[in-house]
Amino acid sequence: MNPTRFHWKGLEQVAAQVLSCAGARREDAQLVAQSLVHADLRGVESHGLSRLPIYVQRIEAGLIELSLRPALIVRQGATALIDGKNQFGAVVGVAALDEAKQLARQNGIGFVGVRHSNHFGSCSYYAEQAVAEGLILLVLSNAPASMAPTGGIEPFFGTNPIAVGIPAGEEPPFLLDMATSVAARGKIALAAKQGTPIPGDWAIDADGLPTRDPTKALLGSLLPIGGAKGYGLAMFIDIFCGLLTGAAVGPGVKSLYGNWQHPQDIGHVFLCIDVQRFLPLETFRKSMDEYIRQIKSVPTACGVAEILIPGEIEQRTMTARKKDGIPLPQTVVEELTKLCSAYGTDLSQAVCTA
Amino acid sequence: MNPTRFHWKGLEQVAAQVLSCAGARREDAQLVAQSLVHADLRGVESHGLSRLPIYVQRIEAGLIELSLRPALIVRQGATALIDGKNQFGAVVGVAALDEAKQLARQNGIGFVGVRHSNHFGSCSYYAEQAVAEGLILLVLSNAPASMAPTGGIEPFFGTNPIAVGIPAGEEPPFLLDMATSVAARGKIALAAKQGTPIPGDWAIDADGLPTRDPTKALLGSLLPIGGAKGYGLAMFIDIFCGLLTGAAVGPGVKSLYGNWQHPQDIGHVFLCIDVQRFLPLETFRKSMDEYIRQIKSVPTACGVAEILIPGEIEQRTMTARKKDGIPLPQTVVEELTKLCSAYGTDLSQAVCTA
Ligand SMILES: NC(=O)c1ccc[n+]([C@@H]2O[C@H](COP(=O)([O-])OP(=O)(O)OC[C@H]3O[C@@H](n4cnc5c(N)ncnc54)[C@H](O)[C@@H]3O)[C@@H](O)[C@H]2O)c1
Ligand SMILES: NC(=O)c1ccc[n+]([C@@H]2O[C@H](COP(=O)([O-])OP(=O)(O)OC[C@H]3O[C@@H](n4cnc5c(N)ncnc54)[C@H](O)[C@@H]3O)[C@@H](O)[C@H]2O)c1
Repeated sequence: MNPTRFHWKGLEQVAAQVLSCAGARREDAQLVAQSLVHADLRGVESHGLSRLPIYVQRIEAGLIELSLRPALIVRQGATALIDGKNQFGAVVGVAALDEAKQLARQNGIGFVGVRHSNHFGSCSYYAEQAVAEGLILLVLSNAPASMAPTGGIEPFFGTNPIAVGIPAGEEPPFLLDMATSVAARGKIALAAKQGTPIPGDWAIDADGLPTRDPTKALLGSLLPIGGAKGYGLAMFIDIFCGLLTGAAVGPGVKSLYGNWQHPQDIGHVFLCIDVQRFLPLETFRKSMDEYIRQIKSVPTACGVAEILIPGEIEQRTMTARKKDGIPLPQTVVEELTKLCSAYGTDLSQAVCTA
Repeated sequence: MNPTRFHWKGLEQVAAQVLSCAGARREDAQLVAQSLVHADLRGVESHGLSRLPIYVQRIEAGLIELSLRPALIVRQGATALIDGKNQFGAVVGVAALDEAKQLARQNGIGFVGVRHSNHFGSCSYYAEQAVAEGLILLVLSNAPASMAPTGGIEPFFGTNPIAVGIPAGEEPPFLLDMATSVAARGKIALAAKQGTPIPGDWAIDADGLPTRDPTKALLGSLLPIGGAKGYGLAMFIDIFCGLLTGAAVGPGVKSLYGNWQHPQDIGHVFLCIDVQRFLPLETFRKSMDEYIRQIKSVPTACGVAEILIPGEIEQRTMTARKKDGIPLPQTVVEELTKLCSAYGTDLSQAVCTA
């Protein structure tokens, strides 16, 4: 049976209804809904509406501050520091993005640190918005512990993601958006469910030995990309997002799923660059196009149809899903159906009518 | 036989003498010499005095502009653009570092793009200087093509390095300094010489297939860390350093060894952050110390004596080598001996007298 397909606008509306019935202000609910559906549109299901139930549970548990606004602590020169006030990550993220864009327009570059935030979804949500305005954006976030430092056996760092968005012209923009772990924890959980082995470089078991057994991996730690290099990347991201901003770091970042006492206290960094300080935007767009075409004309290995630009896979998925609908996995459909009825709305209104 | 050990100050003097005899201004010669010996001190032999012969050959071939100074093209807000004027990479790098530090002190952050530069050695040379002044520094550089884009079979990107330096207090500073490839090309060349196989994730052969044969690897491409993730990192570094600054990109960056017609036209980016805009430096140092100790107290895997902070290995090597001398490899000693005598100086004056 083909999975039911949903219209993205419809899903945004339903998710926003649930969130606002759960107590979020209407604009905030819309923003969070948009950030989640954005991930589903791009095929990043792990950061899509599959997160809506836990978001709502955290509202219900009183762990998200729905009434306060993210607040500017200080703005000086080309930098700013924002207190997320424990609002939704996406609400905080968009406030920080706006500040970073403004600073970049004024100073050529803007660096915004954020403390006391929550899970803000897929980094590409923010990078895509900056790119749409012809700006370059680098986004960093820390996350709850799941990776050990090299040589260690207990999770300390999150899969701390880094994203970089860079506008192009006719070619798709560059949109790198990646966790610093080799693989997402969700992929290991899936392998455990299916009873299939995982590649040997994904994780270590609780004794610190590389393992292909997903069940053992879930009791151990994820491995960073490039060994100690990825450990270094995750650590610098943690320092930027946490120590510099006053957010939590390392295992101090609270789990979205496992901690029902405390706010997550996640930190982010938004670094925005105004291309026009360096060259006219149109010239830059043209050289990006030329550069991308040059990369795409590199001869490919046997069996590889074409070379893709970071973000291109997701952009193609988005185009297809805007047209044909989003095929939500059955488990997600079931969870959302329950959630919707509990909050007096109906998921079926978002089903695509072919 | 133990390798001869050399005193680092002595090596700096000898290298500076060679460079200035070859035509470099005295201050420039000293700076380049310092940057190379810095790498040898840290145990990064690949970027140490083993590069002096090729640097001198490029002077002799008229491919380095010894008489011009790096020039500020534009400074606006918190950004600047520098034309390296084809001077030595280290001379250009230090000029850019100075500009970035100044911008950061004024604006909290400084972003300096650099075009028309040359090989600037190990990124840690610059990061270490910023850290010594209590500043955070991120350094990027592009480099001659040796990595294919994911799916491709011909080198397009360099091993484009990224370094991040962050000051601590009593603990060693964080000093991540890494190529975006899994392994340096030099390590593959060494394996080829010794006839030993290489790990399967280091390189692909000319057909794009992973290979453990170092000879085939040298005819193919290096692999980036984390598959497409490292390809994305190398590409964003290339765009920042090249497209944004007006330097060469991709295979347009000329080889240090293989191109005797053109300047390298390398680009760099120096991004400096003044910690004090976010919190008092002393408070930050204390929280870095605490954070580092927390990481070091993570239980270790069997056989791992301790967890190290990025840069710590190199810092320990530096401390030991400042005390006990630098054990230059025999081939490097031979090359330097020849070079020194050709330029009227004598390497033996730098030998450690135990
Ligand atoms: N908020 C958080 O705490 C958090 C933590 C970790 C990850 N995330 C999010 O998880 C999402 C997924 O991360 P991931 O690391 O699993 O992503 P991924 O491994 O699927 O992709 C990483 C990047 O590589 C690119 N890519 C993949 N294959 C490619 C190819 N063949 N050619 C060119 N480019 C290619 C993708 O376009 C993407 O930019 C991201 O949106 C990230 O922001 C969020
Ligand atoms: N100028 C150029 O064109 C260029 C190009 C590529 C590389 N480089 C330089 O080459 C040098 C070597 O790069 P590399 O990638 O081979 O370095 P590497 O792999 O030896 O080390 C990378 C980083 O990981 C850290 N590290 C390694 N093992 C660790 C452990 N067990 N625990 C904690 N940290 C650990 C190191 O301290 C270092 O910061 C760098 O100085 C780089 O700047 C320069």
